[in-house]
Amino acid sequence: MLDVFCSIGTNGVGYNHPKMLEVAESERMQRAIATRTGLGINPSTDQHKINQEAFMSVAPPNMDRVTAAMCGSCAVEGAVKVAMMAYRVRQDGGVFVEPTPEELCSCLDNQAPGSPNLSVLSLKQGFHGRLCTSLSLSRSKALHKVDVPAFDWPASQNPLYKYPLSENVEYNREQDRVALADMRAKIEQWRVEKGSEVCAVIMEPIQSEGGENLHSPEFAQGVRELTKELGIFFIVDEVQTGVCSTGTFWAHEQWNLSSPPDFVTFAKRMLSCGFYHNHETKSEQPYRHFNTFFGDSMRALLTAQQNKIIKEDNLAAMAAEVGDYLQDGLREMELKYPKLVRDPRGLGTYRSFTVDSAPLRDALGLKLKSYGVNQGPCGDHSLRLRPTLYFEKSHADFYLDALDKACKDLA
Amino acid sequence: MLDVFCSIGTNGVGYNHPKMLEVAESERMQRAIATRTGLGINPSTDQHKINQEAFMSVAPPNMDRVTAAMCGSCAVEGAVKVAMMAYRVRQDGGVFVEPTPEELCSCLDNQAPGSPNLSVLSLKQGFHGRLCTSLSLSRSKALHKVDVPAFDWPASQNPLYKYPLSENVEYNREQDRVALADMRAKIEQWRVEKGSEVCAVIMEPIQSEGGENLHSPEFAQGVRELTKELGIFFIVDEVQTGVCSTGTFWAHEQWNLSSPPDFVTFAKRMLSCGFYHNHETKSEQPYRHFNTFFGDSMRALLTAQQNKIIKEDNLAAMAAEVGDYLQDGLREMELKYPKLVRDPRGLGTYRSFTVDSAPLRDALGLKLKSYGVNQGPCGDHSLRLRPTLYFEKSHADFYLDALDKACKDLA
Repeated sequence: MLDVFCSIGTNGVGYNHPKMLEVAESERMQRAIATRTGLGINPSTDQHKINQEAFMSVAPPNMDRVTAAMCGSCAVEGAVKVAMMAYRVRQDGGVFVEPTPEELCSCLDNQAPGSPNLSVLSLKQGFHGRLCTSLSLSRSKALHKVDVPAFDWPASQNPLYKYPLSENVEYNREQDRVALADMRAKIEQWRVEKGSEVCAVIMEPIQSEGGENLHSPEFAQGVRELTKELGIFFIVDEVQTGVCSTGTFWAHEQWNLSSPPDFVTFAKRMLSCGFYHNHETKSEQPYRHFNTFFGDSMRALLTAQQNKIIKEDNLAAMAAEVGDYLQDGLREMELKYPKLVRDPRGLGTYRSFTVDSAPLRDALGLKLKSYGVNQGPCGDHSLRLRPTLYFEKSHADFYLDALDKACKDLA
Repeated sequence: MLDVFCSIGTNGVGYNHPKMLEVAESERMQRAIATRTGLGINPSTDQHKINQEAFMSVAPPNMDRVTAAMCGSCAVEGAVKVAMMAYRVRQDGGVFVEPTPEELCSCLDNQAPGSPNLSVLSLKQGFHGRLCTSLSLSRSKALHKVDVPAFDWPASQNPLYKYPLSENVEYNREQDRVALADMRAKIEQWRVEKGSEVCAVIMEPIQSEGGENLHSPEFAQGVRELTKELGIFFIVDEVQTGVCSTGTFWAHEQWNLSSPPDFVTFAKRMLSCGFYHNHETKSEQPYRHFNTFFGDSMRALLTAQQNKIIKEDNLAAMAAEVGDYLQDGLREMELKYPKLVRDPRGLGTYRSFTVDSAPLRDALGLKLKSYGVNQGPCGDHSLRLRPTLYFEKSHADFYLDALDKACKDLA
């Protein structure tokens, strides 16, 4: 069985990688397992070194801090909380001012001014998690959200491109312009009509749960400029896109932003969870944001080892190269089976295509299984690939052959 | 150094317990470490067995389901989400009804009716986590909450007892009655004035972050009766109180409720995180609540081993016995140093006392360190003990001796 879904892409270097087993057997790992401490209050003496190897050695360009979390949703909510606290400092002219007695008192009743009317803007079809507040940011599937109360926060239009990108340049640029204008309008609308200040925009490099919608470098650069102009934060959610499968360690590196995002979240394939940020958003007071476990040394040791493996085996470059090869193969399938393989798209081996309908998508997924391929759904009627970073041309050939057979059966 | 704080009580069986190291070295553990799968979609073949040993073998009486989470805050938010979905089923007469198109559509915009005006009531000074929504339930410290938006949910009066309990029975029963009346009034107020239905009450057996406030069996039984009468859920948050230190595996067992809570959350010392619930609150549809990791086999293996150790060494009974001994010692200290050791209280070795002021509390904590004891703060000016389950009489003697010396220095 060729697994190209890998638990929604959490498996970066395959099952039972010898070098991962090496760490698993190490004395340091066994100590980390047998005794867990609360890392925010009782870090081990080598925690700084572990953090350097696991997180800072692969930090996105120009980001110098990292805060741990326990899952992807927690990572997003942690970044959102820290952004809100830092926004308050910006409002006070960049200087931390002690909260007033009225603020301290009112927040215990969940009321303003202590609990302010701040909001975070996400994009339509975006996905940012399923805990109660990250769910307010997710807009991909109604069944995830229904029956759960939500914050009245804005969602702006996502750019919806025609594929292949190279043949629809002008149309797609127009979608970017429309989406950026809507983002600006929604932020203004929330301020004027609802008295709510949008303090951050959150966005994925590729909307994955929402159907694998790419966001162009031009659009992302526009968001970076808009958020800077308005003095609000830009959170890039790389929980699913992070760690090399797009061809670069972080997908947003390919946006070539003129200045880095304010927050970058990670989880899944990173094996550890949390968010990168910068000096400006460092809290001036201890314990403003806190978690008892605050990360996991055991997982961080694995992340550190995986980083080494990725570097030694040059896995990001391989994902870029095999990704191009895979895309060519998928384009050929599209010509042969236009109802079953439409709009192949993505970056590196982080790739997907649309099927004509949800029932047909599910049938194709089952057929693929019968030909030895485990692939996963995404969006309303797409299929996505999330193979490990050892996905080579031979695997792409095996996959494309299985896809060809499965399509032939269903065509 | 005698550690009686143990990373806020997460360390149940001490540092480097030989039997925990045994599991750490096992082949099964090494497989779990080297390859992590998304347990909600790709459970290992022995996952059911692991879940039985880790969770169901120590399930609270009459609770038959468990759902995994990644940290204590996630456990609370997961229980809250599942309670909300189940409340909807109750509203529909106990039968799952497909959401209407209007609900599905409106929830994507975070608006009613899809995103309903439901709320969860917590108690003043309660603590239930620090992610964005669990923070709406926490009422213990303003500095945790300020600057972060909150749901407009009710908090009712917590019973505030006089200690020792045995000498203030009538006064304390009156506090219970006042607190119960306020809970009922707040639920009614939210319904009438804010159009918000309270679908659940959440409460700790002992309010830990809030200053170690006990809740009597009579009060808890009153909450159980009130929630049943109103058709709403009762969530008992055992993230900090769980796993034997109170003298029973779950602290709420000592309430002797006439029927079990609807949800019991766990994390910290349990080593794994999640919540117990019951058949009624099982989701009829898949993926309504989901997380990519959805637990951690590695941690579950440790939880299973810890459960065995606890049983073999009869550690709950020891906590009960040594707890009584410790309490007697603390009462003696109270007579000698009334400004430094006031109102010693708790269950088992889960114990604390109030110090006259925060600066004095901090000074006492530092002094204790100089005499070889690591103890932790709680509430505004209390100190708490969260020793491992191997806290024996000899440790209590060492601790009380250090406390005596530290108090003498400061008196």
